[in-house]
Amino acid sequence: MNLQLSGIIPPMVTPLRSRDALDESGLERLIEHLLAGGVGGLFLLGTTGEGPALSYRLRRELVERTCRHVAKRIPVLVCITDTAMVESLELARAVADFGADAVVAAPPYYWQSTQSELDRYYECLANEQPLPLLLYNMPGLTKTVIPMGTVQRALEHPNIIGMKDSSGNLGYLHQILRLRGTRTDWPLFVGDEETLAYAMLAGAEGGVNGGANMFPKLYSQFFQACANRDLKRMHDLQDLVVRVSDIYRAGSGASALIKGIKTVLSLLGICADVSAEPVTRFEGQDRETLNALLQNLLPFLP
Amino acid sequence: MNLQLSGIIPPMVTPLRSRDALDESGLERLIEHLLAGGVGGLFLLGTTGEGPALSYRLRRELVERTCRHVAKRIPVLVCITDTAMVESLELARAVADFGADAVVAAPPYYWQSTQSELDRYYECLANEQPLPLLLYNMPGLTKTVIPMGTVQRALEHPNIIGMKDSSGNLGYLHQILRLRGTRTDWPLFVGDEETLAYAMLAGAEGGVNGGANMFPKLYSQFFQACANRDLKRMHDLQDLVVRVSDIYRAGSGASALIKGIKTVLSLLGICADVSAEPVTRFEGQDRETLNALLQNLLPFLP
Amino acid sequence: MNLQLSGIIPPMVTPLRSRDALDESGLERLIEHLLAGGVGGLFLLGTTGEGPALSYRLRRELVERTCRHVAKRIPVLVCITDTAMVESLELARAVADFGADAVVAAPPYYWQSTQSELDRYYECLANEQPLPLLLYNMPGLTKTVIPMGTVQRALEHPNIIGMKDSSGNLGYLHQILRLRGTRTDWPLFVGDEETLAYAMLAGAEGGVNGGANMFPKLYSQFFQACANRDLKRMHDLQDLVVRVSDIYRAGSGASALIKGIKTVLSLLGICADVSAEPVTRFEGQDRETLNALLQNLLPFLP
Amino acid sequence: MNLQLSGIIPPMVTPLRSRDALDESGLERLIEHLLAGGVGGLFLLGTTGEGPALSYRLRRELVERTCRHVAKRIPVLVCITDTAMVESLELARAVADFGADAVVAAPPYYWQSTQSELDRYYECLANEQPLPLLLYNMPGLTKTVIPMGTVQRALEHPNIIGMKDSSGNLGYLHQILRLRGTRTDWPLFVGDEETLAYAMLAGAEGGVNGGANMFPKLYSQFFQACANRDLKRMHDLQDLVVRVSDIYRAGSGASALIKGIKTVLSLLGICADVSAEPVTRFEGQDRETLNALLQNLLPFLP
Repeated sequence: MNLQLSGIIPPMVTPLRSRDALDESGLERLIEHLLAGGVGGLFLLGTTGEGPALSYRLRRELVERTCRHVAKRIPVLVCITDTAMVESLELARAVADFGADAVVAAPPYYWQSTQSELDRYYECLANEQPLPLLLYNMPGLTKTVIPMGTVQRALEHPNIIGMKDSSGNLGYLHQILRLRGTRTDWPLFVGDEETLAYAMLAGAEGGVNGGANMFPKLYSQFFQACANRDLKRMHDLQDLVVRVSDIYRAGSGASALIKGIKTVLSLLGICADVSAEPVTRFEGQDRETLNALLQNLLPFLP
Repeated sequence: MNLQLSGIIPPMVTPLRSRDALDESGLERLIEHLLAGGVGGLFLLGTTGEGPALSYRLRRELVERTCRHVAKRIPVLVCITDTAMVESLELARAVADFGADAVVAAPPYYWQSTQSELDRYYECLANEQPLPLLLYNMPGLTKTVIPMGTVQRALEHPNIIGMKDSSGNLGYLHQILRLRGTRTDWPLFVGDEETLAYAMLAGAEGGVNGGANMFPKLYSQFFQACANRDLKRMHDLQDLVVRVSDIYRAGSGASALIKGIKTVLSLLGICADVSAEPVTRFEGQDRETLNALLQNLLPFLP
Repeated sequence: MNLQLSGIIPPMVTPLRSRDALDESGLERLIEHLLAGGVGGLFLLGTTGEGPALSYRLRRELVERTCRHVAKRIPVLVCITDTAMVESLELARAVADFGADAVVAAPPYYWQSTQSELDRYYECLANEQPLPLLLYNMPGLTKTVIPMGTVQRALEHPNIIGMKDSSGNLGYLHQILRLRGTRTDWPLFVGDEETLAYAMLAGAEGGVNGGANMFPKLYSQFFQACANRDLKRMHDLQDLVVRVSDIYRAGSGASALIKGIKTVLSLLGICADVSAEPVTRFEGQDRETLNALLQNLLPFLP
Repeated sequence: MNLQLSGIIPPMVTPLRSRDALDESGLERLIEHLLAGGVGGLFLLGTTGEGPALSYRLRRELVERTCRHVAKRIPVLVCITDTAMVESLELARAVADFGADAVVAAPPYYWQSTQSELDRYYECLANEQPLPLLLYNMPGLTKTVIPMGTVQRALEHPNIIGMKDSSGNLGYLHQILRLRGTRTDWPLFVGDEETLAYAMLAGAEGGVNGGANMFPKLYSQFFQACANRDLKRMHDLQDLVVRVSDIYRAGSGASALIKGIKTVLSLLGICADVSAEPVTRFEGQDRETLNALLQNLLPFLP
């Protein structure tokens, strides 16, 4: 188990042609775009990857194609978050066969779970499938905050190797960093782009940030500036990262984030802008707004 | 489409022997128990049925066995709520082949949906599978309230035949009743046991109440008293229904409701008390508490 | 302490001429309008009465003038909810001198309180001022649900004489009714208009409903129909009460409810439509919308 | 208006002897303790100062005594947050006479306000009393996030001179920093201790942090390290600040933060540990726990 994770690990969007159909060539262009941008790994089927909205068949196809195309150049992590533990285990076993390097799981998200249920949940997931596991704290969507007691147990489990925190709550992050102490082999990633710089300064290992789908070089250099404690460069790049987030605020509704990223990827010629139903693509004025944001950003990007 | 739904339609628990394994004989006893109790239909794979926590394979097996055993004696409704629309459609097509009578869908529950997304969602579900569809409002778990505009469109769709509201919000219920107006062929069911009597007086057609798994006769007679506007009997039975809800408050956590019902069903000799992982059964003191509640209730039950 | 409370006790709006200035003649007309409508008491300085938004000086003036004008024809209750217990006690002592009959207090609403803090809070309020006290559950605005343990202690305190519940949660209401048992001398009022009929059928003593400011006769007759278990009449009037609630949905924001009621009172020629700053009056299209709603309602009102 | 605010401005606790009675000598010791710790100002009657829970009489007494004792050595800011705008204005005028330097106001906190109501609210507060005003964003307790449009207007108002943000939301902070742009004369302070270092690196002017009541030197040096971009020292001190926050987690309930700080101040011999009713002091085991935390911290503090 000597998987070394760090840097920017984009929560890769899932390029789609139409209902339940991958945009295969778009997927390959997207992977090359991310590799060229210097990312430290790929994170498939997460929130930004629309994992929960895809059929199980397509989830498997995406992982299989991605692993084949990446061909071990960087680690591939697969999000197996589900409301049915049995489906999570089956997906984990399947993606292990495809060559994925690790799995990531947020708490089940239909009901809230108690701590003892979460403890048992992560123990099953860690014990009953072959890949190393990372915890994924995403209370805004799962309704459940992973409690410190569960993190403590995870730190002691040989097959749980790290954590992604998308709470955006720095107090929570600091508690985990304290709990982890010197266990820097147990990496911590943050999902929230606003928190990345600070989390890095505080000791986190990297970010799983949606914006890196579009501008992997920007995020990689931002990560590097943070890692180097180069505050001047960190702030210059932070300003750009904050401007990127305007892309997520075009349109309205929770799906605007994913639609915004996919629209920009389509404007960049990388992949189609289709989302899983019932979400539709941005068209007309929304697409023009995003194009204007993009054109304003491009001259400043690395 | 002359399916006539009314009365108590229990959100049937899914009897399990162990991980991903149905308790088949328990299932048959439970169905007979409910039929003997005078219920107006069965509602499978809902919240109380642990639908989201079961494998897709087991969901299909449950519906197939239930339809076969019920053999058209009462209507069988199947909840197809999912985060992936493609999986909902596939499940709906499968259960149509098994002989189910209708499907029911709450909004996708990972992200919140906008109204236009919900409109498209229900239109797809209504158009692209063969069974009549009911809306299911369950904002406590899905985070999305079905807006009146979506209900309005549903009222006009030939394949959407009614609605279940588990919001517990009487203002919402009244808005739907007003919107429905004279369309009493478009039945409205409520999930919340505390609201049932009032909803019935206000014009609703029945209840989908978890407690009816254990005590179908009580709920059927309660329904009948409400339907007959027999206020004296309604209140006597309401007192019992309120006492039943103590069963849901034993233990702690969101799973306590399902664990409480399954424990009582096990104490009554009907089916096993296993829940889908990571939820565990009640044991020791918790089971004794539930047994005491049950023994105190039994002498008063019809 | 033989204050007998029942029926409709309107949460009276506070008629204002301008900042910190009562509309005195409007106040007198409003009181006469309510008395002519057959109400069972007045509830001053509550949520609908904009209590928290008024200066302490004006709160005292309102109570003094109201008590003088009512002249003991019906009981006057005064809401002393505050974030500072010392101010609540002082207000209670002042209104006792003016002739008020009881005080009502929701939990302090800046921070949430623990149960032991609430227990102490209500004990102080009940012991250290001369008037009988009613609990007021209003979690939507105070963030704190009054726990059953606190209600239990209140039932045993000689100076706590009843409760108003504005949670709109019927499960909560039923728990209180069970706890109260045969203590029907300890009246329970509900604030939520949608819940009133059901609460009455279940055993509550009346309602504190904002709409009764405008149409006291409607609410009094609705109360009477509920009290008489006259279901036919109850439903006819319930339909009107539901239509009244359209008035609260004109405009937007939390202040729309109070602005809607004050606009209608102004259209009816009863009092001015000024609210405490920073809330403004409805004008132009909003006022016309409310006038149209009013004109549509008037022919049907008792 | 050349008030220059920066650094650590503690949200000073209000030392109390008993109900509605200041601990006058404790107050003087506390002020000297804070001055000796190098703070950049005092912030009275905020959340930590229990402002909303104190009588208006005592609020005035506290400000008068504090201004007299401080004698212009550092700026004194007074929180005038209230649910009644008239009371806020009166308090502001009174404290101007006592010699306070600025007032600070969060949105009214009983109802939520719309943006246009907030715009009018801050315009009134800025125009109708003599002191410069700072906005205070505290959505966790007021339920209302100050919208960017309101901040934009405040930036253009000559009598609104800065802002305190206690949301703990870095995305919000970044939006304000962008909006402010080069207006570094319009200082931004953060309330959340976990966010202080990052906010400082991003461009904020200082912190209003509860822990500075107890350990003003620690927070002042932390501020200085952040201001100097001395990352090594910043992290060493950040570790201590994170450990201080354990003090807020002793006991339970929202009042635990204030009780924890007052207990430690009492253990340090600075002032009494009485809180405004119905909150009680920590005693027995809780006090011992806090003493143990304090003794463990003391050797490491500057």
